[in-house]
Amino acid sequence: MTYLFNDPADFATDAVRGLALSHPDHIAVVHGGVVRPTATPKGQPALVIGGGSGHYPAFAGWVGPGMGHGAPCGNIFASPSASQVYSVARNAENGGGVVLGFGNYAGDVLHFGAAAEKLRAEGIDVRIIKVSDDIVSNTPENHRDRRGIAGDLPVFKIAGAAIEAGADLDEAERIAWKANDATRSFGVAFDGCTLPGASEALFHVADGQMGVGLGIHGEPGVRDEPIGSADEIAALLVEGVLAEQPERAADGYRGRAAVIVNGLGTVKYEELFVVYAKVAELLEDAGITPVRPEVGEFITSLDMAGLSLTLVFLDEELEQHWLAPVDTPAFHRGATPAVERPRRETFWEAGADETPESTEESREVATRIAGVLDLFEAVCAREEAELGRIDAIAGDGDHGQGMAYGTKGAAAAAKTALADGAGARTLLVRAGEAWSESAGGTSGALWGGALIAAASTFADDAGSSPRTIVEAVDAGIDAVLRLGGATEGDKTMVDAAIPFRAALADAFTGDNASAAILSAAGVARSAADATADITASLGRARVLGDKSLGTPDPGAISFSILMTELGQHLA
Amino acid sequence: MTYLFNDPADFATDAVRGLALSHPDHIAVVHGGVVRPTATPKGQPALVIGGGSGHYPAFAGWVGPGMGHGAPCGNIFASPSASQVYSVARNAENGGGVVLGFGNYAGDVLHFGAAAEKLRAEGIDVRIIKVSDDIVSNTPENHRDRRGIAGDLPVFKIAGAAIEAGADLDEAERIAWKANDATRSFGVAFDGCTLPGASEALFHVADGQMGVGLGIHGEPGVRDEPIGSADEIAALLVEGVLAEQPERAADGYRGRAAVIVNGLGTVKYEELFVVYAKVAELLEDAGITPVRPEVGEFITSLDMAGLSLTLVFLDEELEQHWLAPVDTPAFHRGATPAVERPRRETFWEAGADETPESTEESREVATRIAGVLDLFEAVCAREEAELGRIDAIAGDGDHGQGMAYGTKGAAAAAKTALADGAGARTLLVRAGEAWSESAGGTSGALWGGALIAAASTFADDAGSSPRTIVEAVDAGIDAVLRLGGATEGDKTMVDAAIPFRAALADAFTGDNASAAILSAAGVARSAADATADITASLGRARVLGDKSLGTPDPGAISFSILMTELGQHLA
Repeated sequence: MTYLFNDPADFATDAVRGLALSHPDHIAVVHGGVVRPTATPKGQPALVIGGGSGHYPAFAGWVGPGMGHGAPCGNIFASPSASQVYSVARNAENGGGVVLGFGNYAGDVLHFGAAAEKLRAEGIDVRIIKVSDDIVSNTPENHRDRRGIAGDLPVFKIAGAAIEAGADLDEAERIAWKANDATRSFGVAFDGCTLPGASEALFHVADGQMGVGLGIHGEPGVRDEPIGSADEIAALLVEGVLAEQPERAADGYRGRAAVIVNGLGTVKYEELFVVYAKVAELLEDAGITPVRPEVGEFITSLDMAGLSLTLVFLDEELEQHWLAPVDTPAFHRGATPAVERPRRETFWEAGADETPESTEESREVATRIAGVLDLFEAVCAREEAELGRIDAIAGDGDHGQGMAYGTKGAAAAAKTALADGAGARTLLVRAGEAWSESAGGTSGALWGGALIAAASTFADDAGSSPRTIVEAVDAGIDAVLRLGGATEGDKTMVDAAIPFRAALADAFTGDNASAAILSAAGVARSAADATADITASLGRARVLGDKSLGTPDPGAISFSILMTELGQHLA
Repeated sequence: MTYLFNDPADFATDAVRGLALSHPDHIAVVHGGVVRPTATPKGQPALVIGGGSGHYPAFAGWVGPGMGHGAPCGNIFASPSASQVYSVARNAENGGGVVLGFGNYAGDVLHFGAAAEKLRAEGIDVRIIKVSDDIVSNTPENHRDRRGIAGDLPVFKIAGAAIEAGADLDEAERIAWKANDATRSFGVAFDGCTLPGASEALFHVADGQMGVGLGIHGEPGVRDEPIGSADEIAALLVEGVLAEQPERAADGYRGRAAVIVNGLGTVKYEELFVVYAKVAELLEDAGITPVRPEVGEFITSLDMAGLSLTLVFLDEELEQHWLAPVDTPAFHRGATPAVERPRRETFWEAGADETPESTEESREVATRIAGVLDLFEAVCAREEAELGRIDAIAGDGDHGQGMAYGTKGAAAAAKTALADGAGARTLLVRAGEAWSESAGGTSGALWGGALIAAASTFADDAGSSPRTIVEAVDAGIDAVLRLGGATEGDKTMVDAAIPFRAALADAFTGDNASAAILSAAGVARSAADATADITASLGRARVLGDKSLGTPDPGAISFSILMTELGQHLA
């Protein structure tokens, strides 16, 4: 039960405000989350870690010297939006690039990814670390595709320590992935949590049972079984995690491991210590030395009842960073070096960016792009009802409305940008942001990310050629693939985009973009129609599975329609 | 619900073991609890803080430089026994005396008090700090008689910092009381907690209601009312605590306060931050500056749902100690000075004390005392059934058995001590300890404490006079009054002991102890019989109240019987 809240809609924001008020030396509130109130040293990579709220101390509780530089804070159990991530990253970055770290969940992948597109379009180097420690969620071979749970703590701790010790962006990225690759977690849950204002828990485990491997928001685990004794549960968790113990080597893993027993909220400290007493014994039996173990609440899920065991199989480098000093609201170790950390006077705010200088040539391209967006707005308004109808058969019926809202927002932003004297690149970035914010949902984030990625093929101080247009379309599709994580056959927009891109590469000979796009759009339309024969396995229609058979994917259809219109317009 | 345990009887011990295994640099397990694994600097007072288990981080999580030197750990929600407290204090003490700190609850007062008697009898200076911060539990005028809740954190933090800064025992005691006198807490609860192995919570608050002022084990509060919004609850708590805000003075309180929002277990971090956001606003409105506020779980009650607000009205001295560095498993601040803290090689163990040297004269007295204890054993065996019968009318019927077990244990320990060559003082201390441990319960702790206090009037290197015997009886009765906290009219042993002491003082002229004791014992018996006319308000019979009318208090009866037998025996 969540007892203390005002308006449930404000819960996450209220909590961030209270956190910052109680830790004014560690935390300053910015749009979308929190950053250190002190300046990041010039040229130091910024570690920006986040996810939904409701998991404190993760993630805002880990901002400070030796760990995070900032934390975007989404709503309860919901990824922060791309603009929240972007805002926090902009505030944390100081010339050394950004590492975006988050647990591997679809929403976070999408929104952090979209923010990364935008940061990159602005010339900021960004690396992405998806923590994926939960052994039940995928096979050992696909470790990086697992979901992230309590492994967030050691991965971000180690990455933050490496950065504090002087690692540059390449090095920080390398060590963070290395930490993630060495981290394994396994948990059990006894009962679900209740959102503020809700009267019923998100999920339940049957009385006297435990959900083995259950995710921290109730995602499915391996099986239910009767609750064992503390010793039995300790043995289950140790056995699971040790199944992936790496081989030992003189210059690598030598049987030393960071160990974390994490309580999810309602399993309390004494219980966790009872479990740890057995874990320590079993690790000793296995010849493993726990290095600075941590037993407590690190990644919670409101008042969920459950716990997990995490091991990081340490080599010398990881151990050094695991043990390094850290000073954050919720995680402390040793004494951080007495570096002077001057308080910041100013923070970046949305809308505070000036429009970069542009040339006449680029502004002409910008005007033509704005025209395309006007066209997209008109087309989507025309198609809204039909797209909605298709989507309602097996989805939630909002695809038409999402496309209409998104293109309307993008077109309006483009007009404002033109008025501000923006060049082509700047205009596309702003239009992409507006699309994502106006549409909401997955398709908005994907189209917004696509526009932002396309922006990088244009410049504010140069015109464009037919090749630029084709490259822009290509970059946009790349972004959709990167951000969405779907592959062909998943019954998504990607089923039209991939054949489109292949056809475009074949058709484009270097001078006539419109003809190539038109021709590829025909291929896309056929492919989109063919999605009617696929059962949805991802995206908006996955929940209803078989019901989608016989109806094409609305995202694939809208993509092929817009590419057709684009080709005609360019001709 | 408590989910993780093995044998529920071992829960507290298992948890302490796990804690020590996870914090080997902070914590070493000794009989009865934990101490720092490093030697306390020679001559530094030892701050020994404790209470029942189930409240982590209180109290074992607060052992380390800048805070506690040791923590006796009782069973779940049960005071540690006198021998646990004694063992931890013996291990923590290093020539500077001991401050025993605990929340003001009857069981803790009794058992820490009994341990203090024993430490004092051995020549160790001991001071007692009872934290009493819960405003609903007594009037402002009786602040030191209130019960202790989250105020434990700042009081022990401040006392520990003062000791780390060089305070001697007098100074540490002064500052600890000063901190307690400046601390006010007020809480609400939404639901009770469940003990390991139990299927039902210790108590419940009705759905949708909150218990205003409810104690951390479900002790009664002010009233139940419907759960308010987070802002309303914040306002309620702030108003309650600020009602006792002291006047401001240039050299005292100037509107600066340590602020603690404490969650009891199931009210989670984000909720606490939401409340703190409003608390900070209201304090600002009241012209109060929060100094290093703490929002989180500090004194829990397993999975109880509730929270409290604590303010410490700071002057300069208290603020300095509140802000000082501290390094414990669960509470960190700044960087503790890099003093060398060598690891201890040895710890004190029960039974490890050698019997002090004694003289022939003292051993003769010891032999006579052992004879008295044999007599007490025989008398209590004889009276066991009748004392049990009286006790069963309004109590739990175990007084006869408790007295029989206690005297049997004391007599046996005395024989062993004699065989070891113990003098009178050592023999009485060991007999007192054995009485307390063998009998269990309140009467055992009181009689054991009385014998230990009586020991201080004897010496291991001298004989005794009639005056010594009278002084010993007097010291024993003093201890009962100190430890038990009862006064005349509460229908306890004290109703016989107080008139006995007055009559003894009148009757003793300096040479005939037996006659004086016999005469006073007659007064005690009359007083004991007269307790039949009192309704119990304290002690074993309070629960059944009126049912006790017409029956004398069995503790008063057994006291008068033993004093009568003592007088006859000495004659």
